[in-house]
Amino acid sequence: MSLEITFLGTGSAFPSPSRGASALVLRREGQCWLFDCGEGTQTQLMRSHLRAARITKIFITHLHGDHMFGLPGLLCTLSLQSSPDGSRAPVDIYGPLGLRSFLWRSLELSHSQLLFPCAVHELVPTRDQCPAEEFRDFSGLDRGEALAQAPPGRVLHLDPGEDSYLLLEDEQLAVRAFRLFHRVPSFGFVLEEKPRPGKLDVRRLEELGVPPGPLYGKLKSGSAVVLESGVTVRPGDVLGAPVPGRKLCILGDCSGPVGPAAERLCRGADLLVHEATLGDEQRDTALQRGHSTPGAAARFALRCGAARLVLTHFSQRYRPDGHGRDELGSLQRQAEAVMGGQEVTLAEDFMTIEIPVKK
Amino acid sequence: MSLEITFLGTGSAFPSPSRGASALVLRREGQCWLFDCGEGTQTQLMRSHLRAARITKIFITHLHGDHMFGLPGLLCTLSLQSSPDGSRAPVDIYGPLGLRSFLWRSLELSHSQLLFPCAVHELVPTRDQCPAEEFRDFSGLDRGEALAQAPPGRVLHLDPGEDSYLLLEDEQLAVRAFRLFHRVPSFGFVLEEKPRPGKLDVRRLEELGVPPGPLYGKLKSGSAVVLESGVTVRPGDVLGAPVPGRKLCILGDCSGPVGPAAERLCRGADLLVHEATLGDEQRDTALQRGHSTPGAAARFALRCGAARLVLTHFSQRYRPDGHGRDELGSLQRQAEAVMGGQEVTLAEDFMTIEIPVKK
Repeated sequence: MSLEITFLGTGSAFPSPSRGASALVLRREGQCWLFDCGEGTQTQLMRSHLRAARITKIFITHLHGDHMFGLPGLLCTLSLQSSPDGSRAPVDIYGPLGLRSFLWRSLELSHSQLLFPCAVHELVPTRDQCPAEEFRDFSGLDRGEALAQAPPGRVLHLDPGEDSYLLLEDEQLAVRAFRLFHRVPSFGFVLEEKPRPGKLDVRRLEELGVPPGPLYGKLKSGSAVVLESGVTVRPGDVLGAPVPGRKLCILGDCSGPVGPAAERLCRGADLLVHEATLGDEQRDTALQRGHSTPGAAARFALRCGAARLVLTHFSQRYRPDGHGRDELGSLQRQAEAVMGGQEVTLAEDFMTIEIPVKK
Repeated sequence: MSLEITFLGTGSAFPSPSRGASALVLRREGQCWLFDCGEGTQTQLMRSHLRAARITKIFITHLHGDHMFGLPGLLCTLSLQSSPDGSRAPVDIYGPLGLRSFLWRSLELSHSQLLFPCAVHELVPTRDQCPAEEFRDFSGLDRGEALAQAPPGRVLHLDPGEDSYLLLEDEQLAVRAFRLFHRVPSFGFVLEEKPRPGKLDVRRLEELGVPPGPLYGKLKSGSAVVLESGVTVRPGDVLGAPVPGRKLCILGDCSGPVGPAAERLCRGADLLVHEATLGDEQRDTALQRGHSTPGAAARFALRCGAARLVLTHFSQRYRPDGHGRDELGSLQRQAEAVMGGQEVTLAEDFMTIEIPVKK
């Protein structure tokens, strides 16, 4: 099953013609999940090979405009393009407390009604996720409950034992959020596939007298079978070791993690997407603005043992053409030096990266 | 003094790579005035020859997302690019009641603080500007008054005698708004320059014994002068007929005007920008959605005696390339047929039109 991410916006602060505002699409099983939705994301989607109509989940890392000002427009366009028979899949949106108020006030004032179900699930941040003077408590805001079209949506508090937020979990995968430190509370998301059953050992099946056919499928899916001979064969008798799932980590803007969950949840990531707004030589400015440098991102990736690090959210000065190319080369070298020479990828708009299935 | 408009977005409903969402810049005396600000306007500005930093006034025709969702992001970027010494010129924003709440809620929830003065002046629409079931009364909404950074701003009611709203007036020009009918209350704006003094009649000046020099300037600027001989010369004695100013009319989305002001204020317009979302063959659909066709726009321009009609706000199906070219040709012919063959312009993104000074 293919799993790939496509960057739609890799610039910080505002969208520009050479780097859109933050947005990234994860594609898996024909569904698209959007991470952040800066202004212009819907137009970047149109420019890409992706179909906006496939979006079923949206994750917003934090409430800065360059990460969410594209959301009301995208939802309105999805609604315009959906048939009024309600056949469009519902959209679940996850983001910090306050997102629902922003969205519903924007839709209300623009006289917009969404023609598909849409739920906004809000993560309640902790006060230590940003400088004390920047923290705003949005818990008292009008959240659109009075509106007829107000969506359902959960309010998710930090699980203190796990130091994380469990957003969704099914038989195939789980998505969790963890805390980051930024000018405003920010989150990272980790998608982790569950292990798949190992390969059937055909020689062993033959030895045990299991006839080829439906019984193979039953065993593979984890059920024991009883042969005509009366012998019971269990999955463990004929299956190889489970195949580990893939782990993808996408971090919002940050100067670093809050609490132990970030490093624990990202351990062994197959792909880690981390911001690197400014070069190491501007470390103080980056820190002051709650951002990371390539060196800092690489140190985090190293601590997690991430197999691959992709940097994004570059200052708009790092244009992917002309002189910007040299500066980008410098950012890449800063990160790779920390990673002991391991290759680091610098994201560009419309870059697609596949995360291969493990064998 | 040059006066020109540049289209930044000429598409309806949503921004696309071939037509941005609604936005138009008027440039006069080095200042830029923005009319509508759909999502992506700031990026379109970067792609154009215009400088966002020159924007001092913004006019929003109505509260649909494709006309205002770019406003919070644009203001944040203007703020990022302004120096904190407060040297940036203030920005005045004019738009329907509710705009201020949208803006301030968006800025508050995105933790944005504007580093320049910004006032939002709201026009109170009348209930007959949209279908009764669509009207929403936003007068009770939180308008950010409690916020420290809340801007001043006037609430403008319809002047019943004039059937219009006087937005601003100085020695050089006046800007008024008038009412339009749409799915939600919509407005048109008319900018009218005041007549300039006529040419000095040099022969008459010589006859009257006025010596060349500063007295010429005094007379030209409208003051009487007393000669050494004791004779008083008045401006009317030596000035030709006043030169009429230019008139530019920009209409928001509409299926037609409400009240007599639209036609009266647009009379003799040098340039009239009117929407034509769908072709005449889709007149019923256009009307139902509160939109105009080329024929309807041309009939209005004809009634006003407008010197030049520019159509914009096209359905995204009318792409400016490929097969869309043929369809656009058809829209143009529909309008020109009504105008008795007078040339009609179809707007495209980044098209600039100059309105020449009258002689």
